[in-house]
Amino acid sequence: MGYEIKEAYKVLCDQLADRGIDVDDVKAKLKAQDVETPSWAYADGGTRFKTFKQPGAAITYQEKFADAAQVHKFTGICPRVAVHVLWDFVDVEISEVVEYAKSVGVGVGAINPTVFEQEEYMYGSIAHPDPKVRQKAVEHMLDSVEIGRKTGSNFLSLWFADGTNYPGMDDFVDRKHRVEDCLKTVYDAMPETMTMGIEYKLFEPGFYHTDIADWGMACKFAEKCGPNAKALVDLGHHARGVNIEHIVATLIDEGRLAGFHFNNARYADDDLTFGSVNPYEGFLIYNELVKAEAADPDLKIAYMIDQSHNVKPKIEAMIQTVEAIQYTYAKAMCIDRERLAKAQAEMNIVDCENIVSQAFFTDVRPLLHTVREEMGLDPEPLQAFRDGGYQQKIAEERGIRDSGGGLG
Amino acid sequence: MGYEIKEAYKVLCDQLADRGIDVDDVKAKLKAQDVETPSWAYADGGTRFKTFKQPGAAITYQEKFADAAQVHKFTGICPRVAVHVLWDFVDVEISEVVEYAKSVGVGVGAINPTVFEQEEYMYGSIAHPDPKVRQKAVEHMLDSVEIGRKTGSNFLSLWFADGTNYPGMDDFVDRKHRVEDCLKTVYDAMPETMTMGIEYKLFEPGFYHTDIADWGMACKFAEKCGPNAKALVDLGHHARGVNIEHIVATLIDEGRLAGFHFNNARYADDDLTFGSVNPYEGFLIYNELVKAEAADPDLKIAYMIDQSHNVKPKIEAMIQTVEAIQYTYAKAMCIDRERLAKAQAEMNIVDCENIVSQAFFTDVRPLLHTVREEMGLDPEPLQAFRDGGYQQKIAEERGIRDSGGGLG
Amino acid sequence: MGYEIKEAYKVLCDQLADRGIDVDDVKAKLKAQDVETPSWAYADGGTRFKTFKQPGAAITYQEKFADAAQVHKFTGICPRVAVHVLWDFVDVEISEVVEYAKSVGVGVGAINPTVFEQEEYMYGSIAHPDPKVRQKAVEHMLDSVEIGRKTGSNFLSLWFADGTNYPGMDDFVDRKHRVEDCLKTVYDAMPETMTMGIEYKLFEPGFYHTDIADWGMACKFAEKCGPNAKALVDLGHHARGVNIEHIVATLIDEGRLAGFHFNNARYADDDLTFGSVNPYEGFLIYNELVKAEAADPDLKIAYMIDQSHNVKPKIEAMIQTVEAIQYTYAKAMCIDRERLAKAQAEMNIVDCENIVSQAFFTDVRPLLHTVREEMGLDPEPLQAFRDGGYQQKIAEERGIRDSGGGLG
Amino acid sequence: MGYEIKEAYKVLCDQLADRGIDVDDVKAKLKAQDVETPSWAYADGGTRFKTFKQPGAAITYQEKFADAAQVHKFTGICPRVAVHVLWDFVDVEISEVVEYAKSVGVGVGAINPTVFEQEEYMYGSIAHPDPKVRQKAVEHMLDSVEIGRKTGSNFLSLWFADGTNYPGMDDFVDRKHRVEDCLKTVYDAMPETMTMGIEYKLFEPGFYHTDIADWGMACKFAEKCGPNAKALVDLGHHARGVNIEHIVATLIDEGRLAGFHFNNARYADDDLTFGSVNPYEGFLIYNELVKAEAADPDLKIAYMIDQSHNVKPKIEAMIQTVEAIQYTYAKAMCIDRERLAKAQAEMNIVDCENIVSQAFFTDVRPLLHTVREEMGLDPEPLQAFRDGGYQQKIAEERGIRDSGGGLG
Repeated sequence: MGYEIKEAYKVLCDQLADRGIDVDDVKAKLKAQDVETPSWAYADGGTRFKTFKQPGAAITYQEKFADAAQVHKFTGICPRVAVHVLWDFVDVEISEVVEYAKSVGVGVGAINPTVFEQEEYMYGSIAHPDPKVRQKAVEHMLDSVEIGRKTGSNFLSLWFADGTNYPGMDDFVDRKHRVEDCLKTVYDAMPETMTMGIEYKLFEPGFYHTDIADWGMACKFAEKCGPNAKALVDLGHHARGVNIEHIVATLIDEGRLAGFHFNNARYADDDLTFGSVNPYEGFLIYNELVKAEAADPDLKIAYMIDQSHNVKPKIEAMIQTVEAIQYTYAKAMCIDRERLAKAQAEMNIVDCENIVSQAFFTDVRPLLHTVREEMGLDPEPLQAFRDGGYQQKIAEERGIRDSGGGLG
Repeated sequence: MGYEIKEAYKVLCDQLADRGIDVDDVKAKLKAQDVETPSWAYADGGTRFKTFKQPGAAITYQEKFADAAQVHKFTGICPRVAVHVLWDFVDVEISEVVEYAKSVGVGVGAINPTVFEQEEYMYGSIAHPDPKVRQKAVEHMLDSVEIGRKTGSNFLSLWFADGTNYPGMDDFVDRKHRVEDCLKTVYDAMPETMTMGIEYKLFEPGFYHTDIADWGMACKFAEKCGPNAKALVDLGHHARGVNIEHIVATLIDEGRLAGFHFNNARYADDDLTFGSVNPYEGFLIYNELVKAEAADPDLKIAYMIDQSHNVKPKIEAMIQTVEAIQYTYAKAMCIDRERLAKAQAEMNIVDCENIVSQAFFTDVRPLLHTVREEMGLDPEPLQAFRDGGYQQKIAEERGIRDSGGGLG
Repeated sequence: MGYEIKEAYKVLCDQLADRGIDVDDVKAKLKAQDVETPSWAYADGGTRFKTFKQPGAAITYQEKFADAAQVHKFTGICPRVAVHVLWDFVDVEISEVVEYAKSVGVGVGAINPTVFEQEEYMYGSIAHPDPKVRQKAVEHMLDSVEIGRKTGSNFLSLWFADGTNYPGMDDFVDRKHRVEDCLKTVYDAMPETMTMGIEYKLFEPGFYHTDIADWGMACKFAEKCGPNAKALVDLGHHARGVNIEHIVATLIDEGRLAGFHFNNARYADDDLTFGSVNPYEGFLIYNELVKAEAADPDLKIAYMIDQSHNVKPKIEAMIQTVEAIQYTYAKAMCIDRERLAKAQAEMNIVDCENIVSQAFFTDVRPLLHTVREEMGLDPEPLQAFRDGGYQQKIAEERGIRDSGGGLG
Repeated sequence: MGYEIKEAYKVLCDQLADRGIDVDDVKAKLKAQDVETPSWAYADGGTRFKTFKQPGAAITYQEKFADAAQVHKFTGICPRVAVHVLWDFVDVEISEVVEYAKSVGVGVGAINPTVFEQEEYMYGSIAHPDPKVRQKAVEHMLDSVEIGRKTGSNFLSLWFADGTNYPGMDDFVDRKHRVEDCLKTVYDAMPETMTMGIEYKLFEPGFYHTDIADWGMACKFAEKCGPNAKALVDLGHHARGVNIEHIVATLIDEGRLAGFHFNNARYADDDLTFGSVNPYEGFLIYNELVKAEAADPDLKIAYMIDQSHNVKPKIEAMIQTVEAIQYTYAKAMCIDRERLAKAQAEMNIVDCENIVSQAFFTDVRPLLHTVREEMGLDPEPLQAFRDGGYQQKIAEERGIRDSGGGLG
């Protein structure tokens, strides 16, 4: 006879009880988890060498929302879709987009201005030497604020491709001042309820310097805007070796963490599936989040996914990602914090490490299984999606087409 | 009432059965696992900034063997101790060392010549421009071969600090030829049963170039010696990002993998506990080993630990390490290989990844618990060691002393 | 009164004389220098985020050859153009291409098969699990060999995008064997005069593993083919920190250096202008080449440029690159090798370093000025090209168009 | 006939005149340059594997000051010596040290508290969980402030080894708050004229996290102290790829750059000679400094050297370093800034890059030759030092001894 999930769940509950963990509380938090998926991840994406086209990949905003709705339908925790303005809001009434999203069961999430794809931006957008180009970028961001107002989205998600490729190409400080001015103009136009998330990135597409290169720069720019401007952490945007969980803890303590772009990376901004390369890193980041949540229940952090599934089927990959995030969050709640605090106070490093890694290796699948059942969902989202036949349907109906979208 | 290991074991066995895995076979392999611990890890070690002294840290070879014997006593899979010639065989009869080791229940493992600590080696050993220095290094290695012969150890473990700090300091090709000559001389003196493990390292203590900098160079030097010379993989000796499991698979396929120095690293040659920084990496390496073992049961790979527990109690840290290695090996045997092969053939990447990560997240603690009981050991080695009182005893008897040993 | 190049040249000659350097010999070598430019660098290229279109960027092979001919016209050392088969040889008689090249004053250089842009290659080419895909790739390479035969090009330049994005996606060793088989088939079809250059790369587009990831793997694959298969070093394809000049010296000593793809990189495969990020690195590589040339005048190394000038005007950037390569080569010949050998023998590291860096900081512009004049060229190639009006002409005639080419 | 420095100087002056550069101004700035050398660099230093002992290496503060005085004697720009409190101020009257320094012709520079070498600091100093340990560290720093007051030194140079080696070992936020408190206490005790330089470092000796890991964290801690607390940039303390000149420009613009620890690094905190690995990086940093100086003549930046010359003779290496810094500064003043600004405004990237690199490749040796002569110094400091016989004298008198000092 085979593996019985009920038995496994009982064993897990006993384990957690031994660690003094309130399973009901963990389940409540897992049910309340909320992660945004990005519209562009349902479209074809690729590397500079090739964008492979997948049957059924989305092009229109309707297709993207419909695909995202599948992810929400089967996971129950992805009710909103982050949008990229020039990819999703061209020649369309904003209210139409909102209505359509609603009609398929999702909402509009973070608003991402698109300021890197037009020919004017060859040498940058808000750091560009030419004030006309900066003005264009600022106006597009002001439009984006307006879109947020109309869609009810309160998160403005800013990523800039601005940087230089060669020493001497431009002056760092001049560029810094231009960026400060542009961001402040946009910030001042935001409604009070809106958060500005400022993304930083070590490199790409700038290969010599990037104007917002690390969390420190994002934080400095945010401070010059005001309290609702904060840093946005994309897990793939750091130099190798950098301890991201330490940055996350620092930003939270400084009141400057806007949220995340989840993914995973080994070499550069690889945009791989969350947890696929170094799952322990994701867990250690969630460890900081669980602690911060416990310390401040009003803490607001935007959880968003930003991946590029070049060789995986897009919707399946997104469901796999959401599951990975759920397991990671659950595991971070499985740390015996009382024992850990005691071991830390005694400087018993061996025990500290074991207590943390034991939580990481807790098999939380039976817990999520139960949570999903209690949420009225199929306990195996990926299989349920596959069984639903949606992928075959879109592959057939949409076929393989030239992509209209971009990638983030 | 709490967690019951027996129930957990039953759940695990059911899981493994569903994956078509023969639990008895897995248990047999876990019982046959064999990992060497290094004598120098029981002595004080540190960074260039400070070596913190721990109460009870070993100085003499007797103390190191006695400490290592504790690790074997509680884990059952560490019957041998790797030795460093100038730290363990100075002014002593070899037979005495062998006898002493035997008396405490362990044997002498890999022989590590020590060719980096004497003033002559300021500019290198076997790559040194001065033939007298090279001669000295070669003679020490020939003595080490002799020690191996007398101790019955058949593994010569070679690490060289040779490198340069500044461009122009020496000629790469001249140095290459010197290294080739010296290694060949030593190789030719080895008995047929001996393996020469040639360790490579990206940097440190050389900060411009290292003469044996990567697996390719180690492999080239090995080929020039003969079939029993092979590359030795220290997990902390690679550039960031390098895929170690890919190198391991390549070396095995080329017949040139001598074995491992296990540890873990985030930044450089950090020499941290195996699995403590990126446990998935260790698992993916073991995945290659499990596959290779299955394909060739006669495959001989030397498993050795090389860590520097600067702030952890040494014996506890070693037991923790051995447990981590056991769990990792066990997890790698929990992959449903039939399903994986099928998913690979279908290029179903989402399933491939899930099958692999599911094995990684299998909670194999109940399995090791059972294995240890069947081996007549305490199922919780770390706790058992702590309960045994050995650490208190040596802390008291030996106290805090100036270290005599070195660090690797 | 201003700077007089003649005075500067005299000062330089005196300096070099003091170092025992034969200026005539240096000049002869600079005149004989020979670097290939790649056809694809004259077409629009970009990052995954955007390919900015430049006025006049080449699309057809005719345009690419014509542009490359400009580089040769003004530098005098770029007589051949590396071609990418699917970008330059589609629906065209090979003889036509050869004729056209000749008509504008250049020849066909290295033949680069294109095995990463078609939908079949989504999961790889010669490492692909499906034998039909491998067969397609092999056939394309065999066609490429044939093209080489017909164009008189004796260099087959192989880069594969093969790799995986996720652990478990495929088996490393199976893939290795597939690659070995395919390469051997192609090698066996090559004429004796042809060299197979096997390029390695740490990552991209594979983000978990790359089948030919480092020089060691390229070398192993080459050895399995035969003596005319060798490793091709692209300066941007290494992990951070890796000492490329050490690898170059090693490959030369092993008889396995096919040649170079010159460029420069700070973060990843940035494909920036040679010498623009870390000019000392290029110099130290050339130092090895100058030594190797001196030791073996018959040494054959293919010098090729592979850059992606996303934001620089393409032809200007190529001339700038060729100049940078000339200065670097010249500087490497300015090392006082007698004094260096003496300092090395005395282990006088301070002097070793100073002798090398002094050569690097030698202002060799007056030397190249003279060399160009003696070659009948304008001494300032970039200015001369600008004055020639070619760029304005193609910008006007060709305009801004959708690109047909790709990027390497 | 050989190279004539006078002719070379004339050629250089003509070159600079063509670039619109005022040579007299450049010379004045070079004469006013001021760089501190560190007392510990005259003592034996090494890696964790071995500290090689050099004949004549300094042990006492007297020896260190005497050696440093040689560097100042021959370069004329190193009038002060940075001190490490526990290495230079143990069991001695502060006034004696000051007097002695004066007597040999140098002064006391930056005060470096030593809070990482005592057994209490095994788990950190100001981030340590135990308030008694933090108190000890704070008291030592308060003593250091007092030393600064008495020696007339107005720079408190803070580096902390604080960090953790394993996940879970301690809580990031708790540690952050401890660091904030301790630094504020010390800051509040500083005289108004004193600057607190807070050094950051990616890793080592902490191998999992470092409490002050990057410029952003150093800046945050500084802001919590007050306006005289600033970040201290050690060139070897960044993750690979990080653009240091961009950070320098950012810190200056934020009013938070305390100064530098000059050295060079390829892999980690290699502590090699400034300019020896990547001279262009040093030049690009100086480019920012020259611009900032021009914009604000009152800008105060502390220039200090922090290197570990494991295999180079210490005093020679220091003179070589100072020369490298002089050449770099001079080159950065050789940029034709008017042409550069114009090229930047026109987004002529090719020219921008060429203008910058042309300055880098300017042979400024004749300029420094002249500057030194005008300062009454020997134009060739290294040779002059060698000719002076000091090294032989100390080698003979001091011999090879067990080191008493440490390394930074």
